[in-house]
Amino acid sequence: MTEPLFWLAPAAAAVGLGFALVFFLEMRRQDEGTPAMRRIGAHVRAGAMAYLKRQYRIMLWVFTGLALLFAVLAFGTGLQSRWLPLTFLCGGFFSALAGYCGMQTATLASGRTAAAARSSLPRGLRIAFRSGAVIGLTVVGLGLGSAVFWLLVIDWSTPPAEDGHRLVLVTTTVLTFSMGASLQALFARVGGGIYTKAADVGADLVGKVEAGIPEDDPRNPAVIADNVGDNVGDVAGMGADLFESYCGSILAASALGAAAYTTAPQDQVSAVCAPFVIAGLGLLLSVAGIFLVRTREGADQEELLRALARGTNTSAATVLLASPLVFYWMDMPNLWGIWGAVAAGLVTGVVIGRATEHATSASHAPTRSIAAAAEEGAATALISGLGTGMLSTALPVLAVVTGTLLAFLSGAGFDPGNISEGLYGVAVAAVGMLSTLGITLASDAYGPIADNAGGNAEMSGLGPEVRARTDALDSLGNTTAATGKGFAIGSAALTAMALIATYLEVVRIELLRVGQHMLELRDGLIVATGQADLADFMLYFNVTLLNPVVLVSVFLGAMVAFVFSGMTMQAVGRAAGQMVIEVRRQFAADPGILAGSSEPDYTRCVEISTAAAQREMIAPSLLAVTAPLAVSVLLGVPGVIGLLVGALSTGFVLAVFLSNSGGAWDNAKKYIEAGHHGGKGSAAHRAAVIGDTVGDPLKDTSGPSLNILVKLMSIIAITVAGLAVSWSL
Amino acid sequence: MTEPLFWLAPAAAAVGLGFALVFFLEMRRQDEGTPAMRRIGAHVRAGAMAYLKRQYRIMLWVFTGLALLFAVLAFGTGLQSRWLPLTFLCGGFFSALAGYCGMQTATLASGRTAAAARSSLPRGLRIAFRSGAVIGLTVVGLGLGSAVFWLLVIDWSTPPAEDGHRLVLVTTTVLTFSMGASLQALFARVGGGIYTKAADVGADLVGKVEAGIPEDDPRNPAVIADNVGDNVGDVAGMGADLFESYCGSILAASALGAAAYTTAPQDQVSAVCAPFVIAGLGLLLSVAGIFLVRTREGADQEELLRALARGTNTSAATVLLASPLVFYWMDMPNLWGIWGAVAAGLVTGVVIGRATEHATSASHAPTRSIAAAAEEGAATALISGLGTGMLSTALPVLAVVTGTLLAFLSGAGFDPGNISEGLYGVAVAAVGMLSTLGITLASDAYGPIADNAGGNAEMSGLGPEVRARTDALDSLGNTTAATGKGFAIGSAALTAMALIATYLEVVRIELLRVGQHMLELRDGLIVATGQADLADFMLYFNVTLLNPVVLVSVFLGAMVAFVFSGMTMQAVGRAAGQMVIEVRRQFAADPGILAGSSEPDYTRCVEISTAAAQREMIAPSLLAVTAPLAVSVLLGVPGVIGLLVGALSTGFVLAVFLSNSGGAWDNAKKYIEAGHHGGKGSAAHRAAVIGDTVGDPLKDTSGPSLNILVKLMSIIAITVAGLAVSWSL
Repeated sequence: MTEPLFWLAPAAAAVGLGFALVFFLEMRRQDEGTPAMRRIGAHVRAGAMAYLKRQYRIMLWVFTGLALLFAVLAFGTGLQSRWLPLTFLCGGFFSALAGYCGMQTATLASGRTAAAARSSLPRGLRIAFRSGAVIGLTVVGLGLGSAVFWLLVIDWSTPPAEDGHRLVLVTTTVLTFSMGASLQALFARVGGGIYTKAADVGADLVGKVEAGIPEDDPRNPAVIADNVGDNVGDVAGMGADLFESYCGSILAASALGAAAYTTAPQDQVSAVCAPFVIAGLGLLLSVAGIFLVRTREGADQEELLRALARGTNTSAATVLLASPLVFYWMDMPNLWGIWGAVAAGLVTGVVIGRATEHATSASHAPTRSIAAAAEEGAATALISGLGTGMLSTALPVLAVVTGTLLAFLSGAGFDPGNISEGLYGVAVAAVGMLSTLGITLASDAYGPIADNAGGNAEMSGLGPEVRARTDALDSLGNTTAATGKGFAIGSAALTAMALIATYLEVVRIELLRVGQHMLELRDGLIVATGQADLADFMLYFNVTLLNPVVLVSVFLGAMVAFVFSGMTMQAVGRAAGQMVIEVRRQFAADPGILAGSSEPDYTRCVEISTAAAQREMIAPSLLAVTAPLAVSVLLGVPGVIGLLVGALSTGFVLAVFLSNSGGAWDNAKKYIEAGHHGGKGSAAHRAAVIGDTVGDPLKDTSGPSLNILVKLMSIIAITVAGLAVSWSL
Repeated sequence: MTEPLFWLAPAAAAVGLGFALVFFLEMRRQDEGTPAMRRIGAHVRAGAMAYLKRQYRIMLWVFTGLALLFAVLAFGTGLQSRWLPLTFLCGGFFSALAGYCGMQTATLASGRTAAAARSSLPRGLRIAFRSGAVIGLTVVGLGLGSAVFWLLVIDWSTPPAEDGHRLVLVTTTVLTFSMGASLQALFARVGGGIYTKAADVGADLVGKVEAGIPEDDPRNPAVIADNVGDNVGDVAGMGADLFESYCGSILAASALGAAAYTTAPQDQVSAVCAPFVIAGLGLLLSVAGIFLVRTREGADQEELLRALARGTNTSAATVLLASPLVFYWMDMPNLWGIWGAVAAGLVTGVVIGRATEHATSASHAPTRSIAAAAEEGAATALISGLGTGMLSTALPVLAVVTGTLLAFLSGAGFDPGNISEGLYGVAVAAVGMLSTLGITLASDAYGPIADNAGGNAEMSGLGPEVRARTDALDSLGNTTAATGKGFAIGSAALTAMALIATYLEVVRIELLRVGQHMLELRDGLIVATGQADLADFMLYFNVTLLNPVVLVSVFLGAMVAFVFSGMTMQAVGRAAGQMVIEVRRQFAADPGILAGSSEPDYTRCVEISTAAAQREMIAPSLLAVTAPLAVSVLLGVPGVIGLLVGALSTGFVLAVFLSNSGGAWDNAKKYIEAGHHGGKGSAAHRAAVIGDTVGDPLKDTSGPSLNILVKLMSIIAITVAGLAVSWSL
């Protein structure tokens, strides 16, 4: 790369990974607590590793098979890039590696957090948050590092040319790296989501409802599976999801930058490098922000939250302040416009996070109204939760819509006709939103660690003052989890939008490759021409909403989002049912379990969740992969674009609805447990427990899985663009 | 009209209305039963009329206000047609008139059906079905008749010209008639939906769950409100919904026909008349089909269903057979293509009906799996129902997608570039689907009559053999209601698609009106030109999915569908809560009510439902009306089209999901009550009752209200097209 500041990106990746190692070693040195605590920690770690091992074994087969297929397509038909098999494998590998490191860290950290909470709250927070930071920095460090690596390799191996299309070709080829990351994210998010909720729902249904034992009680055979599930779903799943958004947005932005500035070589290099530079800058400032997160003994919820917010907000604000400077050094074209796009992305992320918190926190009206409705029974609590969740989609959508339009206009220099540069602005907004992922993911990953620390404290019978501390940490984790979920959805939406825009670029490249020239429709005839602008191209492929193929494909996309959600929901229902049967069986076979005299068979429950997760994710995965393939073949390019737009718009709104309904039910239950509407054990509480259980798969399986769906379908469409083009011609 | 066969339409309308009167008088002559039965019937009728009176009073104000506003816009700014105030009022009036006749019929018929069921099942079926036919024929008769009337008036009053655009102007002006019908449908569907479920949920929560008295027990103060609600929601609401789809599809098809054949005057007249002729033909054959519905004493569910199916299928098949003949006499251009579109519409309607039945009937796997999941508790029953409902969206979407593509290709003579004629085909498919509305609506409206007959029999303490007969009739009604709901959604989707296509035509007309010529974008400049084809036009307004305004507006549309559903759901929750408080109050104030010694205050509950319905429909109505207005002003034509497509695709899928989940829970509960999974009173039954109650607002309020949303937003967009165009320029 001829842009010196580009090297900020690999340097930042190295710094991030370095600090991840430092924090990891620091955590490893902490006290592991009592033998009981060690034993429970070991159980959870063994369960988590057993799951990962099984998932990676399956992945190995799927990835090998697909890589061979891609190799055949690439070297046989010439419809695919020859780099595809390698970048694809690499994307999957690094995402999996980040997931493995994250799981190791999380399962080692939770026991140590509980042990530290025995002496003080700030020490517990420090261990849990720094361990979260290991996960956050590993994800961004590996993501940015490998993206840089592939850009350099493919740039170096592509023959030099003066032609502005060279960098377009390079960047769109690098983008296939996202495909591997996306497929691995599918396994991690869908499988992990099914695992965690099968265990959770199953444990609750028999434990809490039938046997009347509290949550995290060691007599419950599914309790270890439940704790494993928190790691599998919220650490590995969330991490893989954001790994993909992170790489996807950076690579899509660089591809769109290459496409937008084909006629100005120096501007093109700047535009291609900018996303990497923003990401590198954000990574460094995330590390700085992490050091700002600390608190004093006896801090209340407000103070803990402020401690986290201080770190995140400082990172975001300094990115905003520093980026114009960096752009100036880079000779960025449209400096302030691109800065506006970065700002639009960062602000959109914050607004969505706030909106999610408003919709799901018990301090606000929506969740309280659900708690009040629970007084009239489970049915009204459920109706109220569904209604509240649907209403809560308004703000996030308005935020994304406003953010996208502003980023577009800003990127386009306020000329709406300047579509290519405007779309680059949208992709840059996604990069901006994700630039401080290092620290936002640290806050997210902190949640399951604190949650498991609480579980460990409960199971090893630590004293009430320790439980109070872990409860404070856990409750903070619930808030960050809600915000994090909103952030994951919002960044997925922006990333998917950037990917859809990139799809169009790739189609144009394919046309160039196939015909060695751009084709244009003039007076009903296809005319070859050296250059054609995007509008002509659109006309040729007729991607207007007037084309019935586009119109019905939007319907198809909306349907795919719903069917995909239905599948994941049913999967949890079925898997939880198996768990219920097993837990009932164990209780019946050995009365000593409930009496507390004999240890239940935790491993069996872990195995059930693991097997169910692997089996149940097949159908939704197939849907996500085959839908864009089938539409590519059957309806061509206009169909694919309709499908992607329909799935993205409906999928985004549906994901917000599902996540927020689930989150609100969860917190309405906790609000009642805190003594409102009759408190624990009242009729309202029983109703709220049902709401919470229904919400579990909504908020932790179906909702988050939609993030993957919208991105994966776009990236698959990009990969098989050659197919769609050859059909459309 | 110079096409002689056009007169088939008014003739058929007259025949339909005539038979409606005959059937009505026949029903009036039947025995009303015992004094107790009369008293209950009078209660329900009084409640229904009180509701209608109040709704019409509000409508009077809203319609007068809007008509004045339209008059000011039309005569002041010239942005609107001067006919708009009149056609608007007329559309609202005739829809309301059809609703009034339907409610009179239904409330008079249910007591008589119960009375007839004392002597025999076939007599009960005959009265209930013929009364349903009164409603069906009134809706189609008034709809077709008034549409014909306005076409003739506006055609006559428009100065003659050779120009092909004259008929386009005439037909798009007549289309504003739909606007009044649509707004009245909003009030009827949303208000009716809230009314019926507030009463139903409220009655169930206290009566069934708390007091342990059965459904339709006269001791329940909300029981009359519940029975009134069946009429208000399923007769008046469903009728107004389909009245609008019926008129909307006919008028949109004629407008698109006029636009597609501007250059061939004789073909244009045929194309404009064809939708009316198809509707007239279907109406006549519906009347014939109605006479085929009869059964023998002791018939089982299968036989009853076959009796209904015989009528409906015969009508549909004869329409298919007769229409080519009619088209031949009319000198229809592209005769077989248009016939193909009619066939595509009819088949799509049948497939959606079947799919709905499969998704919601207890004879099939989905509903049974919900019943099985209820064994593990309410939470799993709910998860399973939500999942099943989401999965069930696949088939209806595939049906609509296939039907639309086939209708398009067929209408376009298998030339995909022939967009105008193809869109005409899509609209004709909607007309085809709705052509036999006379008999399909008869089957739908039969449902609430049979339901109320059962309620009447229960409340007046008729013997078990009579209850068995009314139960058989009611159970048949549940099946037809499910099919009918699917049909209503499917026809709304096709109608809305036709309306969106018409919107584009209206925009084009507006451009002609504003600038006296078509404007075209060439090399970045706006160039005036005499004629421009649709593709140029699309390019100018940039309705490609690449335009970020279009893209984000699709998001907005998806969000509006969800928020609208959330609002209606919350409305039911709140209104039901009030009902619960009132019923509890009555039980507490007078213990004689539960003992059966004193009569509860039915009127108070009716008033609560009525007031709640009127109050709670304000917010969703405002959303439906303001969203297209706001987007027209803020984002112009590309924004409006994105909004409509987003709302339609998401709204359609969401409506199917909500209706099917609700229907499946309802039937899962009935399946358990029939003795499976422990039967009535078991834990599974209690779980299923919660599912059923949650499903009530989903299937009877939020789901059906979405039908109106998608149509109303399109028709409002059409009405304010002038505004959007002037902004876009």
